[in-house]
Amino acid sequence: MNQSTAQKTEPSGQTDRPQAHVLKLPIEGLQVDREPRSYEVWLITKLMRMAGSPPVRFRLWNHEVIESEAGEARFTIHLSDPKALRSLVANPNLAFGDLYSAGRLHVEGDLAELMETLYRCIHQARQRWPRWLDALWRNHNPRPTGISEARENIHHHYDLGNEFYRLWLDTAEMQYTCAYYERPDLTLEHAQLAKLEHVCRKLRLKPGMTVVEAGCGWGGLARYMARHYGVKVHAYNISKEQLAYARAEAERQQLSHLIDYVEDDYRNIQGRYDAFVSIGMLEHVGKDNYPALSELIQRSLKPEGIALLHSIGRNRPMLMNAWIEKRIFPGAYPPSIGEFMEICEHGDFSVLDVENLRLHYASTLSDWMQRFTAREAEVIALYDEHFARAWRMYLAGSIAAFRAGSLQLFQVVFTHGGNNRLPQNRQDLHTSPAAPEA
Amino acid sequence: MNQSTAQKTEPSGQTDRPQAHVLKLPIEGLQVDREPRSYEVWLITKLMRMAGSPPVRFRLWNHEVIESEAGEARFTIHLSDPKALRSLVANPNLAFGDLYSAGRLHVEGDLAELMETLYRCIHQARQRWPRWLDALWRNHNPRPTGISEARENIHHHYDLGNEFYRLWLDTAEMQYTCAYYERPDLTLEHAQLAKLEHVCRKLRLKPGMTVVEAGCGWGGLARYMARHYGVKVHAYNISKEQLAYARAEAERQQLSHLIDYVEDDYRNIQGRYDAFVSIGMLEHVGKDNYPALSELIQRSLKPEGIALLHSIGRNRPMLMNAWIEKRIFPGAYPPSIGEFMEICEHGDFSVLDVENLRLHYASTLSDWMQRFTAREAEVIALYDEHFARAWRMYLAGSIAAFRAGSLQLFQVVFTHGGNNRLPQNRQDLHTSPAAPEA
Repeated sequence: MNQSTAQKTEPSGQTDRPQAHVLKLPIEGLQVDREPRSYEVWLITKLMRMAGSPPVRFRLWNHEVIESEAGEARFTIHLSDPKALRSLVANPNLAFGDLYSAGRLHVEGDLAELMETLYRCIHQARQRWPRWLDALWRNHNPRPTGISEARENIHHHYDLGNEFYRLWLDTAEMQYTCAYYERPDLTLEHAQLAKLEHVCRKLRLKPGMTVVEAGCGWGGLARYMARHYGVKVHAYNISKEQLAYARAEAERQQLSHLIDYVEDDYRNIQGRYDAFVSIGMLEHVGKDNYPALSELIQRSLKPEGIALLHSIGRNRPMLMNAWIEKRIFPGAYPPSIGEFMEICEHGDFSVLDVENLRLHYASTLSDWMQRFTAREAEVIALYDEHFARAWRMYLAGSIAAFRAGSLQLFQVVFTHGGNNRLPQNRQDLHTSPAAPEA
Repeated sequence: MNQSTAQKTEPSGQTDRPQAHVLKLPIEGLQVDREPRSYEVWLITKLMRMAGSPPVRFRLWNHEVIESEAGEARFTIHLSDPKALRSLVANPNLAFGDLYSAGRLHVEGDLAELMETLYRCIHQARQRWPRWLDALWRNHNPRPTGISEARENIHHHYDLGNEFYRLWLDTAEMQYTCAYYERPDLTLEHAQLAKLEHVCRKLRLKPGMTVVEAGCGWGGLARYMARHYGVKVHAYNISKEQLAYARAEAERQQLSHLIDYVEDDYRNIQGRYDAFVSIGMLEHVGKDNYPALSELIQRSLKPEGIALLHSIGRNRPMLMNAWIEKRIFPGAYPPSIGEFMEICEHGDFSVLDVENLRLHYASTLSDWMQRFTAREAEVIALYDEHFARAWRMYLAGSIAAFRAGSLQLFQVVFTHGGNNRLPQNRQDLHTSPAAPEA
């Protein structure tokens, strides 16, 4: 389904706030008045075997239970109707999230733990699959991320409303990216501020320097850099809602003279800077645009400047989960570490530092999930129950993916190949805690 | 020229110590009794333009001077005869080192600085070359690195004699790899010990753990790990001379009960370990063998084990300098960071940390060069003047390559994809200095 078309045909009470498409699934075929057919039971058994026999039992619409072959089941999945069963078997990757969102698939047990168990089992099983089976567990290529498509893609997710994100993101700087739990007991707020500090230290910022930020979210990093390092920041974003918040907040913090929030595509960045930074945008850039991104950084970075890209990634090339790409993050593609390096190799760059913060993202998401759950009634009031369920699935699935190791979080620091004014070592990143005093 | 054949046909006074092949170049065609032809002058002018017009002048055998087009020359290169000129123009990459070694090309000015200037100029110029010009500046594919070839390749370089390497390597642990100048004023000895400590910290070693080391040199890391961390080490090497030293030294330090030095190819590593480490071997492994290396680490590393590979590398794929590959390091190929990542992506690994220590290698090599120069008379006594000149060129060229950014030094830390017992952050690498107290 094309995002923009879908939006245009939906009557919407609010201005141009996008409606999550998970809301639009017709709840059809709820024929709960018949017994399961034997082939349906057979299909579920096959599905479980294909998934590596996870410790999961299925309970069907007539309360019939299909037990796990792995012995004691730790989770129970309810299916409300035969069509739900058939669509789950036909396209499990996409249907699991859709059915959960539509309330036709229920889970007994911790959702994130179930997802982690499933990811680990499937990852194991997959190595023994014949090739044709991969087709069933199908993901598809991400949709295009040209300048106009990128606007639609970003609008779809990031313009859901500041009100919505404010319910469950940190109150420090509205960070919708991986925090840095320098100590495991940090609050979400402190871990997010530690992340901002960690990034600034990696960039070796000094007062008076100039920084360009590609994809600035609600502008928190730009404000942190201006506030704590006295640098001048040009921060680019194509989400109107986020920029409105960013500007108001910079005004409130009396930082407007140091920050220029630019409503434009990162590809239109002008000028040369001491630092180039992008936190959580690369996932939306699309592999086809990596050479252009590389050339952009090449021309935007001064000869002795430092660049930092922070992005969700993979241990090897792999398509995004179909449900996430279709319902949550249109156009998203997290690169493998090798694909990430292609950005640097395409230009005349030298990679200085790669840090993988995978489990920090699992912690971040757990904190978000906890807050989201606590404010779920408000989410439902803002949107509806379908929407809330879809987001619960997205957060739980993401916790699971980072815990199971199917997603990574890479911070990559690089500079021009000929630059010899390099940091001597990484000691300066750790001379004092990055998190504020508790 | 095939290494093993060459060695067999050379009469050698010493046991089986390899003779550097740079010695065998015939000093032919020293026709210094004629004027340079005009086409010869034209060729040198062309060569300089192709090299990006470096600030270099040429002085020919009849004292005729060809000035740099770049204005004031900072270096003068003497050519002793017309054949030297023609071979330099025909294959500059290979001939420069060969002619220098043979004493037919002399340099006025600091050799490392000249080489750095040349590398930077050529790197710039190269981006404007037509494709056919690349053919002239030709490097070639590294020779094979199968098990038997690897023995010849390693023998060629590392069995030159402990006596030789002892003249100019550090006296602490005979490290023939990049040191870690945690502070710029460290001695070579302290910087090498800091490197060993830095590696141990990255591996998060604890007493009682088991470690396997692929390519252990003179065994210094194994001894350091046993001495300071109380771990058990299996250290593999195929250089007899190095192993004899390693075993004697472990005996002397009363560490033999903790270290098993194994004379065997790394591909024959057996068992499973808490850590897999390899310092400066990957350059000799050869790209064709990366999948096998990846599989080897996959099966040798316990589920929660950590692996570290330390290797010279590149910012993008590029063949080794022809002279180095032919005369100094047969079979050598430093991988680009992307090719390096292929080793991790081939297996089910997760990259945790990449650190680039490029300028640390320039410092290491400068320290080596200084000691080498101070002991050059002894080198000549051990071998001869050709050999000493070839090594001076190799050290100077390497300093230049690291300074100009055409070589990198990557330390890559990774673990199995499903391992969740990860270091929380990298603070523990920097809680105290890695170098010993001065």
